[in-house]
Amino acid sequence: MAGHLLAAGHEVAVHTRTPEKARELVERGATMVGSPREAAEGRDVVISMVGYPEDVHAVHLGARGTLSASQPAGLVIDMTTSRPALAVEISKAAAARGLDALDAPVSGGDIGARNATLSIMVGGSEAAFAKARPVFETLGKTIVRQGEAGAGQHCKMVNQILIAGTMLGSCEGITYARAVGLDPATVLESVSGGAAGSWTVSNLLPRVLRGDFNPGFFVEHFLKDLSIALEEASAAGLDLEATALARRLYELAVGQGRGRLGTQSLALVLEERWRKGLPVG
Amino acid sequence: MAGHLLAAGHEVAVHTRTPEKARELVERGATMVGSPREAAEGRDVVISMVGYPEDVHAVHLGARGTLSASQPAGLVIDMTTSRPALAVEISKAAAARGLDALDAPVSGGDIGARNATLSIMVGGSEAAFAKARPVFETLGKTIVRQGEAGAGQHCKMVNQILIAGTMLGSCEGITYARAVGLDPATVLESVSGGAAGSWTVSNLLPRVLRGDFNPGFFVEHFLKDLSIALEEASAAGLDLEATALARRLYELAVGQGRGRLGTQSLALVLEERWRKGLPVG
Repeated sequence: MAGHLLAAGHEVAVHTRTPEKARELVERGATMVGSPREAAEGRDVVISMVGYPEDVHAVHLGARGTLSASQPAGLVIDMTTSRPALAVEISKAAAARGLDALDAPVSGGDIGARNATLSIMVGGSEAAFAKARPVFETLGKTIVRQGEAGAGQHCKMVNQILIAGTMLGSCEGITYARAVGLDPATVLESVSGGAAGSWTVSNLLPRVLRGDFNPGFFVEHFLKDLSIALEEASAAGLDLEATALARRLYELAVGQGRGRLGTQSLALVLEERWRKGLPVG
Repeated sequence: MAGHLLAAGHEVAVHTRTPEKARELVERGATMVGSPREAAEGRDVVISMVGYPEDVHAVHLGARGTLSASQPAGLVIDMTTSRPALAVEISKAAAARGLDALDAPVSGGDIGARNATLSIMVGGSEAAFAKARPVFETLGKTIVRQGEAGAGQHCKMVNQILIAGTMLGSCEGITYARAVGLDPATVLESVSGGAAGSWTVSNLLPRVLRGDFNPGFFVEHFLKDLSIALEEASAAGLDLEATALARRLYELAVGQGRGRLGTQSLALVLEERWRKGLPVG
């Protein structure tokens, strides 16, 4: 994503805890800096994309965070999938310094990031969104403002809830196919193109059939997202049973050392429990 | 579907408990007969598509069923979504009379039936499948033999398990969107095209947003299918928790008098319980 910004002619400063990851960017002209604060100092825009809400908090609100700069970037964008309430907190802290902030989590995975085809779900003021649009257009394809601060995160939660249900059905379906003695690949020929079809069925179940459990998206990150979604739902008085079931099964997967596998490894959890004759969950 | 057979030049006899439904077919040249037995008498192929496994049993194995004809059709095809074990029973009864039988449930709904774009999932011998193929090609587009008798039904169960999970995620997602104050239509712009995408999200959630709960597919028929899937899974030692959750919620919907609404009315169940502050399920 930073590469797209360089390619579009922007001057880019990068900070990362794993400097090797930025080597190629530095070779292409980016400046490496030592903290989020330095990344924000005197810039027009500062963008974060990290792992967990705690990281987002540190990057923007911490002692060496972007908002501690003497001349901080006028527009603060967090693209991590994180807590809606934290997005509101950052937005307020930014406003207190006269700055704009947007939450702008994405979907589309590493492929979407590489090809600049991400869906970017944005929360924040219309004015800030208008300022950020040229940057977003460099990074993604589907760019939609969902509402005020936190709304981008809430929209991403919907995205993850949809995936959780589809993944449950997909992994139960493929495990059923194996359990009753069907050939799963032949089953996919019949079911992929119709009302049972989904991105997950078309893209992840073939990986399951090949025994490829490498991450498109890490189990441990998905578990984080589902936990945020369930907390937010609970705060809104909403009980999401399917999402809660998915969280329980992904917790099992993490407990089995599968946190750095791809989300499709839910199929492994279900199949192993079936082979052992254990109830699932 | 019978209309496609007429259009392809076949001689067609029809039997239905609701004769008005066949009026147009009779006007187009089909012969109305008084029982499944008469429909099978002296024909090459007999095809059933009814509601429940009990109906399938009556149509083929009952006192006036197709297999009681003096010169029954040489090829018996049941396209109802029904029990795999019943497909095996019909296949054996047919074989005892020297006849071939296939289970061939479909997906694609009324639109797929009308446009002859159904996916037809077939169980039975290769020889019977080869004989039936020209008929299937008149009715559908994706025609795949899944294995011996019952395998077509098992494949359809996979299809329904996939839909159950996707529907759970879709309805939880849209209810979450409403509960946290997002505009659901704007959310769909962000989430439909990526990894959260599915036929259900693209085709049924827009109906939910319009308040259109008319059936593409009846709740009560989906509930039947999920019950069969769960019985078969249980017989194979497999616990399908997401599918079981879907069944529980669709039982609620039927209890609320929603059996003849479309499956997307699961969203109504979730939203009402959220508005009433009740735990879902």
